[in-house]
Amino acid sequence: MTDLSAVKAALKSQRIETPSWAYGNSGTRFKVFRQEGVPRNPYEKLDDAAQVHAATGVAPIVSLHIPWDLTDDYAALSTYAKERGLTLGAINSNLFQDDDYKLGSVANADPAIRRKAVDHLLECVDIMDATGSHDLKLWFADGTNYPGQDDIVTRQDRFAEALAEVYARLGEDQRMLLEYKLFEPAFYTTDVPDWGTSYAHCLKLGEKAQVVVDTGHHAPGTNIEFIVAFLLREKKLGGFDFNSRFYADDDLMVGSADPFQLFRIMHEVAKNNGLAPETGVAFMLDQCHNIEAKIPAIIRSVMNVQEATAKALLVDLNALRAAQLAGDVLEANAVLMDAYNTDVRPLLAEVRTELGIDPDPMAAYRASGWASRIVSERVGGEQAGWGA
Amino acid sequence: MTDLSAVKAALKSQRIETPSWAYGNSGTRFKVFRQEGVPRNPYEKLDDAAQVHAATGVAPIVSLHIPWDLTDDYAALSTYAKERGLTLGAINSNLFQDDDYKLGSVANADPAIRRKAVDHLLECVDIMDATGSHDLKLWFADGTNYPGQDDIVTRQDRFAEALAEVYARLGEDQRMLLEYKLFEPAFYTTDVPDWGTSYAHCLKLGEKAQVVVDTGHHAPGTNIEFIVAFLLREKKLGGFDFNSRFYADDDLMVGSADPFQLFRIMHEVAKNNGLAPETGVAFMLDQCHNIEAKIPAIIRSVMNVQEATAKALLVDLNALRAAQLAGDVLEANAVLMDAYNTDVRPLLAEVRTELGIDPDPMAAYRASGWASRIVSERVGGEQAGWGA
Amino acid sequence: MTDLSAVKAALKSQRIETPSWAYGNSGTRFKVFRQEGVPRNPYEKLDDAAQVHAATGVAPIVSLHIPWDLTDDYAALSTYAKERGLTLGAINSNLFQDDDYKLGSVANADPAIRRKAVDHLLECVDIMDATGSHDLKLWFADGTNYPGQDDIVTRQDRFAEALAEVYARLGEDQRMLLEYKLFEPAFYTTDVPDWGTSYAHCLKLGEKAQVVVDTGHHAPGTNIEFIVAFLLREKKLGGFDFNSRFYADDDLMVGSADPFQLFRIMHEVAKNNGLAPETGVAFMLDQCHNIEAKIPAIIRSVMNVQEATAKALLVDLNALRAAQLAGDVLEANAVLMDAYNTDVRPLLAEVRTELGIDPDPMAAYRASGWASRIVSERVGGEQAGWGA
Amino acid sequence: MTDLSAVKAALKSQRIETPSWAYGNSGTRFKVFRQEGVPRNPYEKLDDAAQVHAATGVAPIVSLHIPWDLTDDYAALSTYAKERGLTLGAINSNLFQDDDYKLGSVANADPAIRRKAVDHLLECVDIMDATGSHDLKLWFADGTNYPGQDDIVTRQDRFAEALAEVYARLGEDQRMLLEYKLFEPAFYTTDVPDWGTSYAHCLKLGEKAQVVVDTGHHAPGTNIEFIVAFLLREKKLGGFDFNSRFYADDDLMVGSADPFQLFRIMHEVAKNNGLAPETGVAFMLDQCHNIEAKIPAIIRSVMNVQEATAKALLVDLNALRAAQLAGDVLEANAVLMDAYNTDVRPLLAEVRTELGIDPDPMAAYRASGWASRIVSERVGGEQAGWGA
Repeated sequence: MTDLSAVKAALKSQRIETPSWAYGNSGTRFKVFRQEGVPRNPYEKLDDAAQVHAATGVAPIVSLHIPWDLTDDYAALSTYAKERGLTLGAINSNLFQDDDYKLGSVANADPAIRRKAVDHLLECVDIMDATGSHDLKLWFADGTNYPGQDDIVTRQDRFAEALAEVYARLGEDQRMLLEYKLFEPAFYTTDVPDWGTSYAHCLKLGEKAQVVVDTGHHAPGTNIEFIVAFLLREKKLGGFDFNSRFYADDDLMVGSADPFQLFRIMHEVAKNNGLAPETGVAFMLDQCHNIEAKIPAIIRSVMNVQEATAKALLVDLNALRAAQLAGDVLEANAVLMDAYNTDVRPLLAEVRTELGIDPDPMAAYRASGWASRIVSERVGGEQAGWGA
Repeated sequence: MTDLSAVKAALKSQRIETPSWAYGNSGTRFKVFRQEGVPRNPYEKLDDAAQVHAATGVAPIVSLHIPWDLTDDYAALSTYAKERGLTLGAINSNLFQDDDYKLGSVANADPAIRRKAVDHLLECVDIMDATGSHDLKLWFADGTNYPGQDDIVTRQDRFAEALAEVYARLGEDQRMLLEYKLFEPAFYTTDVPDWGTSYAHCLKLGEKAQVVVDTGHHAPGTNIEFIVAFLLREKKLGGFDFNSRFYADDDLMVGSADPFQLFRIMHEVAKNNGLAPETGVAFMLDQCHNIEAKIPAIIRSVMNVQEATAKALLVDLNALRAAQLAGDVLEANAVLMDAYNTDVRPLLAEVRTELGIDPDPMAAYRASGWASRIVSERVGGEQAGWGA
Repeated sequence: MTDLSAVKAALKSQRIETPSWAYGNSGTRFKVFRQEGVPRNPYEKLDDAAQVHAATGVAPIVSLHIPWDLTDDYAALSTYAKERGLTLGAINSNLFQDDDYKLGSVANADPAIRRKAVDHLLECVDIMDATGSHDLKLWFADGTNYPGQDDIVTRQDRFAEALAEVYARLGEDQRMLLEYKLFEPAFYTTDVPDWGTSYAHCLKLGEKAQVVVDTGHHAPGTNIEFIVAFLLREKKLGGFDFNSRFYADDDLMVGSADPFQLFRIMHEVAKNNGLAPETGVAFMLDQCHNIEAKIPAIIRSVMNVQEATAKALLVDLNALRAAQLAGDVLEANAVLMDAYNTDVRPLLAEVRTELGIDPDPMAAYRASGWASRIVSERVGGEQAGWGA
Repeated sequence: MTDLSAVKAALKSQRIETPSWAYGNSGTRFKVFRQEGVPRNPYEKLDDAAQVHAATGVAPIVSLHIPWDLTDDYAALSTYAKERGLTLGAINSNLFQDDDYKLGSVANADPAIRRKAVDHLLECVDIMDATGSHDLKLWFADGTNYPGQDDIVTRQDRFAEALAEVYARLGEDQRMLLEYKLFEPAFYTTDVPDWGTSYAHCLKLGEKAQVVVDTGHHAPGTNIEFIVAFLLREKKLGGFDFNSRFYADDDLMVGSADPFQLFRIMHEVAKNNGLAPETGVAFMLDQCHNIEAKIPAIIRSVMNVQEATAKALLVDLNALRAAQLAGDVLEANAVLMDAYNTDVRPLLAEVRTELGIDPDPMAAYRASGWASRIVSERVGGEQAGWGA
């Protein structure tokens, strides 16, 4: 039997990190649809993030993206966050929107461009020092579009060299989280295309380097929970970039395309101590709300992670282990499905009430009036978007 | 034995249509890298297309995209084209870059937006009348991102209604070419996701409606040449949008990712009379040259189609049929591979010499000085790009 | 609001057809693991099917597979079924296990083999007359492994001819259900690879020909519920072969790999009147229980279909339509997810109690002692398996 | 410019290893079509392999599969091979065809089954000692079919323990080659599903453990040449299991589905010193000739590897590097494509003539009369097949 009070305690202490860029406009290569009331600077993004935290109670951390959240006073930004009950989370680098990076950043054939790219990463560590962030999250768009365009092995050499320099710059309490992605924007090779490549680099770099699993960055058919379990066993899972997809890197709301997969992932996390703060797994969202209202979409996403976590925590691990050891395929599967088929929304409503917030986050946000307030107040200026 | 003079004649009479938008800037959702010397209006696009035709001898037709190629005098544009040995080809509609189309165009729940979308399509037929174009090429971004977002069947009803109205407007000599695409920009359902859907609509509309096969628009593992053969058997193949991809709709140069696939496609085309003008198959490119120089990339793409066509024409169909009827799997495959493994570049050099052009199109373009000329001349103004 | 008594009524009248072959041994190309107590003939398969029906109350129909269920007296078999509360359902042809079919059956280049294949299909209709079955279910393994091996268009011609002959033989009350499959056992082309091909053939054959959707037979990323909705709109959905998969045609228990997908499929079915008997959609299982106990796996599969159906019936269609028409993406998605997130197991327990059966089918089966009885009784003879 | 005599020398010294099982019958789960004249024991398989080597001149090594090639005197088998100009290559274990392995072998929850499995692997090393084989090639079918069926992390622990015991048993000159596979026969998790998992285990085991890349074992869209290049950089590429596929692990003749991919792979091999014997990359075939004649299919496969290798050797690496460093995307691609588009069959004919064999291996085999001889002589007994 599962201990319900322990389940509730785990749900209350869960922390989900929301990304500053999800509050701004985003889109596909065909069109970015602009929404009214979208924030125009990092401060307004924090205001929106505070609404998400107010509604859910478990989203007090906000990832920044440099230079999208460039400011001349990160200490002030950090203070602004704290005043709203938030802390600044991972610092995300951006090495894909400068014209120099057309053929790559740290893997570019041109040493001057590599230097510029590494300098940007070092600057991100400076910002971490200023914000008190612990995680440098690295996603590289580097790769090639055509066979022959560049040399795979030489690019790995360049990558290894750049990562080593940045790793050496990390402080005691700082980590490097290395993301991988199958493809896009590179369409033939990507320099860090899969968990194996990220893992191999992290292994050589050292303990402070860990792998980030973005749930939308895999080839069709990849078993993501296997990767999660494997990395936890190797103590190399640094965190998640949560989102969901039916096709490629669609960046839909996490849990919206395959909620059972999200549950299976959280089952591996929960079973392998990944929810414990000392394991150091960061639960981050990385999504694009192209057509839906952004703040409620993020609230919904946080709720989806919570529901998957709650179900994962309800798995009767003793019964599961017993069936597994007995080789009872159907019973082992049934134990897992029992938890998945449970409606955990009443449990989460209780958890919220005990946290002192509204049991229904979506209703609470609707009632807050924030949506109409930002539409009327945020007029003029340039709305934040990818590249804004 | 293959009749070489017939092969040469077929290669000389082949017509490849290049798209006006491939001459302009394009990119991914992460970044559009701008290139120097890119055309700033439809006239300059035609200038560039004329270079491609001069170098290859088989690319005299240019597809337009409305409103990217909007002009107030299509007759003048058409004359401008003719003066450069070009003709205006398919008119491509655009129903995805207006804010109204966030939730769809002809399938939108809002009847006013549907009206607006249909009016745009009717306007495109007006433009066809003005340019003398025969083909209305329709690609719809319509779809949904989330389960439940809209009703699949209702959207089909709206689609059928819109297509019928536009079909009724077509002149004697005009066709509607209906493209399909698995996904992007819609990430859950797409309203015309596969050839079956396009085929079913075209069948109901009538003989003037035909399917367009974009080689990048399929699910992984889809056998495209099967679709091509099936549609030719049904007299429903209106044409191709050629490009290539390793992953999703990468829009790389046709033949660059899987040249053997392109050969297999052209083999079905050639064998089933698809190269004959009376069959009416339009051979169009639809590509995005995000990081490579645009004009030479298009020249290279035209050459890739030519090489695949040449190899397809070299297949010894009598030997192939004999092996097939004998059930000799290895021999039948060997007959096909013999043609594929042939180096057809000398043959194509001969064809070009006989056409009175340089046997080496890439060298001819380099020698023309056009690349540096446009960089120095096309200064100021807004370079053409998606949405420009 | 949803009318619960109507939901219950629909659940009580649902009919799920189980396949005789799922009760026998099956496996992968690497190994067929034999299980004890597996039936040795069609009669014992019916005995097992009767257990599934006894436990679930909604599985009274059994599909046969010819020649795996060959018998010299189908009337006797039919009577045997009736005595156990069962009826004989679809007759499945087998055109892939005879040495003659190495290079195809109805699409074989050899006319004598085509004749033999068509004769088998006609024999299946004879058997339908004897058993009172209404559905001839056709799945063809026909295809090729290597480019060039055979001619795609010629094979379609042979297919069309064979299907037409069989169609002409159908009685008033009989249907031809044509299945499609992306690949396997053919590895280059498959002659009926997708719904579009099946649909096109059915359209030409006439009203008695309809498409069967096997949920495991699609390319990665294919939106199956779109196909289901489209075919329902066209009145061409004849039925389902239910199973599930993570990769290719894995034939796992339906609902075990992606229960949300199964729900979305049943949502389209329910919304588009597909549950009404007059629509004629057959809900069949087609699974291989390679490593798990067969009878309880089938019971579990039936329950999975019931749970997905129950959730689909709980969707508040009025609220859904309202949100869709309002363009409220998040709300429309939320209405759908509300139903999916409901725990319908208590509702189904009620339905079973009202049907007069045990509310817990798995427990009921365990309590029946059937599992140990067949192990002790079914000794000697050849256990039924694929090809047995 | 490429040095042609060096290219020829490399082609003459290339060694391709053919697998004993490819000479026997194989098939899909639906049917194994039996061919006449197929070998009935390991000695007859060697006779067939000798024909392949006689025709191609580069296939003197034969992999064995235990227990399919079980014999009571491996020294005698080895002598038999030598007398025919052959040597015995990798020893392949088989841990998937015993009933005990239904739920896994070295990862089974039952310690007695794990013991049995490890003992089989140790026996394979004993056989290596007897045959003089240097490579133990391990492919495991271990995995699960249903979520919850077994514990991912615990299974990794069992795997690590078993591999370590076998690794410790290896002699000085012996290697462990660890294969990975996305799926099949396991349909939910596979215990070694990707190169990353294999690499991580090999790294811990030590220098004698290396990764095997089976070209058919990846998720759709995986860039195999990237993996090859990465493993060569890490000195962890032990060898290839060559075959090709359009869909899943189709085991078609290598180079038949995507010859350009095979070329790209061989380009990485050639460029990164992978053809040098001291690098230790084993070039093995692993194919199933389900419908085509087996010996000529293997000859053809060897030729396909040779053609890809020849093209790879023709790449002008200096020109390639220059274009890459200059960031000239189109030129770098063109250099690569120049080599690919070359017809290397005349060059290979020369190589064969210089080796003293027929320039046309397929014609030589046809002329040998071997095909009809084995049909008439190999009558009676049980033909070898998977599991025979």
